[in-house]
Amino acid sequence: MSLVLYYAPMTSSIRAQWALEELEIPYEKRKVDLTTGENRRPDFLALNPNGKVPLLIVHGTPIFESMAILVYLGETYGVTKGLYPAPGLNRAEVLKWMAWNTATLGEAGARYLRHVSDRYPAEERNEKAAATARRDLHDLLGVLDRALDGKEYLVGGRFSFADLIVASFVPFLARFDIPLDGFSHVDAWASRCMARPALARAMQP
Amino acid sequence: MSLVLYYAPMTSSIRAQWALEELEIPYEKRKVDLTTGENRRPDFLALNPNGKVPLLIVHGTPIFESMAILVYLGETYGVTKGLYPAPGLNRAEVLKWMAWNTATLGEAGARYLRHVSDRYPAEERNEKAAATARRDLHDLLGVLDRALDGKEYLVGGRFSFADLIVASFVPFLARFDIPLDGFSHVDAWASRCMARPALARAMQP
Repeated sequence: MSLVLYYAPMTSSIRAQWALEELEIPYEKRKVDLTTGENRRPDFLALNPNGKVPLLIVHGTPIFESMAILVYLGETYGVTKGLYPAPGLNRAEVLKWMAWNTATLGEAGARYLRHVSDRYPAEERNEKAAATARRDLHDLLGVLDRALDGKEYLVGGRFSFADLIVASFVPFLARFDIPLDGFSHVDAWASRCMARPALARAMQP
Repeated sequence: MSLVLYYAPMTSSIRAQWALEELEIPYEKRKVDLTTGENRRPDFLALNPNGKVPLLIVHGTPIFESMAILVYLGETYGVTKGLYPAPGLNRAEVLKWMAWNTATLGEAGARYLRHVSDRYPAEERNEKAAATARRDLHDLLGVLDRALDGKEYLVGGRFSFADLIVASFVPFLARFDIPLDGFSHVDAWASRCMARPALARAMQP
């Protein structure tokens, strides 16, 4: 098979799984057990020296980083499916939200989790930094909320990989006490995105 | 003019400036004074609600996030210039390093700076977290070093936007006591990238 996805549950792998299900292209799924350190084994590190998932093997070439995987899948398979715009300004706008999720929202989210999640050592936390990260996340949800005011989806009036990548992260914040209650446009949009059958297929074990 | 770049010195704006100079396309530069809060003024926030630079206005449409700007410029102008591959696996590999810089290296770098740079409040620091971030950055420089072993550039034997985006960040770490001494392939590659005339043009006031 020409596409092989290495993934783990509860990671950004879900973006790649969701995208592949939306595109309805055949791929092989290989689960990586992070709890036993499979991602640090030499055979995995030879494919992704960062020891992270998702990792997509495309005709034998390993592609790491969820944003790279989504842009590649988008331009290769997504245009005819209406999930990724043809080259031009609409595509640039999809890219801007994908990069915003990856860089700006992603950084603030990772920073917040470092200070509040049990995944990270308690002695590396700082309460004031946690409060700043929380405020930053609220500001960014405000940016997203205003961008979605009067819109069903982020770009061009239809669901695209911009929505997919942001919606794979934002609802997850509720688990860390950042609910979407105050952001009604984000909340409604997240529900629309989460209702897509391709996401349900991607979540199946 | 159809391309307008909002920038500020000593920020990731340099990536967009460097890319535009490599492409040799005409653009208008508008400096944003972060010290007086020009980036928080309503007229700027109307273009980029995140209050950040770089921001590229393309035929009136604002595109934020340096990675989005570079992918847009790459696919629109970079292919014929040999700076961005045509669609396919080489492009996917360029994207994987661009996204790696934006997400993985960028997150570790931002995290480290939060704990050591005067740009951020001293009371939000944590020494153990700084040490972890420092170790993570060293690990990532190791990943980059091995990727560059026996290579002049990251992908396809020629300078591309993958090199540009990573080289716009990595040498900057020396200012924060993370020199490239132990990473000889990275060091040599960074020198090659930094010697490009387009970077010198981008750095001109």
